Parts: sequence; C-alpha cells; structure tokens
Amino acid sequence: MRFEVTVLGSNSATPVYNRNPTAQLLNCNEKYYLIDCGEGAQQQLIRYGFKASKIDHIFISHLHGDHYFGLIGLLSSMHLNGRAKPLKLFCPEPLKEILELQFKHSETVLRYPIEYTFTNGHHPELLFENADLTVHTIILSHRIPCTGFRFDQKKRLRKLQIAKLEEAGLDIAYYPMLKRGLDINLPDGRIFLNADYSIDSDRPRSYCYCSDTIFTESYFPSIKDCDTLYHESTFMHDMLDRANQTFHTTTLQAAEAAKINNAKRLIIGHYSSRYKALQPLLDEARTVFENTELAIEGSKYTI
Amino acid sequence: MRFEVTVLGSNSATPVYNRNPTAQLLNCNEKYYLIDCGEGAQQQLIRYGFKASKIDHIFISHLHGDHYFGLIGLLSSMHLNGRAKPLKLFCPEPLKEILELQFKHSETVLRYPIEYTFTNGHHPELLFENADLTVHTIILSHRIPCTGFRFDQKKRLRKLQIAKLEEAGLDIAYYPMLKRGLDINLPDGRIFLNADYSIDSDRPRSYCYCSDTIFTESYFPSIKDCDTLYHESTFMHDMLDRANQTFHTTTLQAAEAAKINNAKRLIIGHYSSRYKALQPLLDEARTVFENTELAIEGSKYTI
Repeated sequence: MRFEVTVLGSNSATPVYNRNPTAQLLNCNEKYYLIDCGEGAQQQLIRYGFKASKIDHIFISHLHGDHYFGLIGLLSSMHLNGRAKPLKLFCPEPLKEILELQFKHSETVLRYPIEYTFTNGHHPELLFENADLTVHTIILSHRIPCTGFRFDQKKRLRKLQIAKLEEAGLDIAYYPMLKRGLDINLPDGRIFLNADYSIDSDRPRSYCYCSDTIFTESYFPSIKDCDTLYHESTFMHDMLDRANQTFHTTTLQAAEAAKINNAKRLIIGHYSSRYKALQPLLDEARTVFENTELAIEGSKYTI
Repeated sequence: MRFEVTVLGSNSATPVYNRNPTAQLLNCNEKYYLIDCGEGAQQQLIRYGFKASKIDHIFISHLHGDHYFGLIGLLSSMHLNGRAKPLKLFCPEPLKEILELQFKHSETVLRYPIEYTFTNGHHPELLFENADLTVHTIILSHRIPCTGFRFDQKKRLRKLQIAKLEEAGLDIAYYPMLKRGLDINLPDGRIFLNADYSIDSDRPRSYCYCSDTIFTESYFPSIKDCDTLYHESTFMHDMLDRANQTFHTTTLQAAEAAKINNAKRLIIGHYSSRYKALQPLLDEARTVFENTELAIEGSKYTI
C-alpha cells in the first residue's frame, strides 16, 4: 500500500528563494490527505501533478498564515471546478468563521459540504479513522494553539496466494479466514495452514508531522517510535535564543526529538528565510541524528 | 517619468497552466501601486524582482477571491519583514473585517498602519491623488460590487535647459517661473522666453483597469481616451451567453470597449481556464481593435 508524503511548501513565515509556505500532501493507499495549506499550495499541487479533486481530508495545524492562507483559494477552486463530494476539514475552530466570512462577501454558496472537525490544543485525541489509517493530534507548544498530526497505517489482512489455493481446491468461502490469519480445518480432514497459503501484509507505518513548536518533552509521547518524523527546524542551533523567543526549534532540537523518540527517519523543514543554502542545517542535524533529510519542495518521501 | 504596468496574474477564477489569478503592479515614477492581489501575488513579485516594501498603495477591485486571496499573505509578509511605514489600501469595506479577523486569530498586531479608503460600487470618484497621478474608480457591473481604477498621470513642469540658462546668467530665483511656462521680463530689459530655455514635459498618460464586468455602456465615460486600457476578456465571443450569465466580457466586447472609447491600446486578460492557448483570443480581439496585446505574466507594458 502506497504511503508517501510530498512536500509542497518548506519555508517558514514568508515565501522566498522559490520556497513556499508550509503544505504537504500525504498519499495513503491512493487517498490524498493535505497537511497544512500555505499560500500557493494549489499552484504547487498543479506544478507537481496532483489532482486537488482527490483530496478529501485536510488537516490544518494552527492559524498562523503560513500554514493556512492557501486554503480559501483551494476550497474556492474545488467549488469552481464542480466538486460535489464532501470535504473533511480538521482545524482550529475559528477557521470556520474565517472561511465563511469570505464566502459570504463573495456571495459563494459552496456546491459541496465542508465537514468540520475542530482540533483542541490541550490533549491528544483520535481525530479520524478509516480502513487505511488513524490520525491522532499531537499537542505542540507554540505561540497560539497548535496541533501536529500522527498518521498510523492500519495492519492490513494477509495476502492470499490465489494460484496455490485454486490448485489445492479450497472453497473461496474460507478465504476471509485465511486473510485474518486463521488455519482452516475442513470437515473432510484436510488442513490449510494460513502460513502455507498467505503472506503477511507489510508492517504498518507511521508518519508524524510537527509543524511549529518549541522544544519540550510534552509532545514526545505522541511521536514515539514513528517511521518518519517531520519536525520543524526553523533555525540553526546558534539561534537557540531566537528559537525559544518565537516558539520554534533548531536543527539540533529536531534531531534530538527524533533520537529520543526512536524515529527511523527525520525530515526537517520550515526553514527561516535567513537561510538560502540548506545544507548547513542538514549537516548540523545529522551530527545528532544521521538519518535526516531536508524537506525539498516537489520531493516525495516514502514512509 | 516611468509609467508601466507588469502583469503578475492573468487567469480568471483558478490558477492553471502556470497562470495565476489577477494581480498587476503599476510603476509610476518609481512608486509601486498594486492592483488586485490574487493568491500567489507575493510569490510573483519575488519571481519578477519587485520589492514588496516599495508598495505603498494597494487597490482591490472586488471581493471575488481570485482578486484578493493573496492580500493577507502579502500584508503578513510586510509585517514579518519589518515594515513600519503606512500602507494605503483602497477596497470594498468588508475586506477590513476579513483581514482583521485573520490577524486576530494569528495574534498578529501589525507593525505598520493600514490606512483604508473604502470604494463604493455606485458612482465614480476621485480615490487618491499625489504629485504624480490621480486615481478614479470605474464603476463596473459584476455579480458583486466591483470597481475598476483609472490612473491619470499629472502634467509635469517644463524641463529647464540648465546649461543654456547658466550661460545666459539668469538668476535661479526665476527658474520656477520658467518651469511653469512663464516668460521672464527682467528689470534690466532682458527677456527670457520659456520656449528658448525649457522643454515641455511628456504628455501625461492614462491607464484604465477593468477587472471583472459585463459589457455595458455605463462605465464607458470613465475609460474614455485612455492610453492603455486593460479589459477583462474572460471568453471568446462564441461564449457570449456564458459571459452574460457570469457578468463577464468576451474578446470582441473588450475590443469594442477599447474602440468606442478611443483607447490607444488594449490589453486583454482574466482568461477562462478553458483556454490553454491564448493566441485565438488575441486574434479575435484584433479583428475589432488592432492594437491589442495579451496580458502575459512577467511582461511589462509601458503606458
């Protein structure tokens, strides 16, 4: 099952050096989950060949503009392009008023429903669940209420070896039991061990997204043992004071968060506009956590 | 004096084919006037090498998102980049509430004042005036209140031929009189004809911007005799019914507006997303008004 994230925006605060404000597109089993939506996210979706119509779930971490100013444009374009199916929007509650005020003054009555789920900035919760994954909030510590998101794939059923089963002549009525990992004892005495006729599904993977936060242990339980951790890394570590003042983290802190919490891989992003070259941020993070990568717009990261 | 407009966004409704929603930057005597501000306008400013800090006046025609969704991001970036000088914003009144609601929820207290002037959708008025130009509204007819803008350069003073004057030994106290076109009769009997010592300034030019409108004579008086008319031309003329339904104009109507009102040049833009190739729109408009050009992003049009 496909489980990969594409970076659409990698810069903090303002667009610069051809870098855009934060947005990411998660593809889980060919369903699109948009995570944050900075200005220009819809242009970035087009640039990298993603159909916005395939997005049914949008997650907004907080109401600093570099994480949501592109949302109203994306929602409007979905409307103008004839969308009818519902869109699930997970966000801080005031975003509803912000969107509705703008629809009101443009006299726009959306052709599709937006189904809001409001995040709370106080305690982690299960936000969403379907056959493919669960999404929990991560309570970050920023200047305004801010939640990250943890996406956990669900364990899939075992994959059947159909050709072998057909040769052995097992009735297909028993297939679901094999998929669930059971052995089959037929009334005629034949035994079908599921290990002989099915293959275990892939290990479920997890992706944690920490958009904007100061370095604090309080959110560590929520990001434990994930496969890929995206963690903001606004500054190099010599700017630690500035990071603390602005409730952001440094490269070394992002790397520490990955290390302490046993992440398999770290992606850093949300770069301050003071950094044109990004290699120094990567080099610094790798001194603490080797398996670190830069968030680069248009790049796809398999989780 | 420089008087030129750069197209930052040329598409209607939604971004597509690498075309962005509407925004234009007018440079009059090295002062920047931003006209509409669709999503991504700040990225476009960067792309084409314009400093947003030089923009002191912004004009928003109406509250359809493709004309203003980029404004909140631009204003936020100005704040984050340390702007202190006031910004004059000419717009429909509800935009103030839309902006303030977003600043409130991001807990942003702008470091610079926004000085609002609200447009009215009912009658043309003088909106702004400085040493270089006047700006009047053009009352367009769209689905919601919508004003275009007419920028008229002011006639400048005559340019003195300093070397010649110094050789003739005229006291500089008389220079302002010559600049204003007066002749000088000195007490000693010498006569300085201003035609001998000064050159007339350039003819003042005018630029009219008609963002979104149905074709109607009601706004014609406001666009009479301009040097360059930008007129939306959302559709080819075979889509006239659709243009009328959506309160937009066709290529032929834009060309008629230019012809009837004696424009020297026409720029068409605000293209429907149904047109990937634009040459057919240009060809059609030129059947009625030869001196027509396409609005192309990044292109600069000297007025």
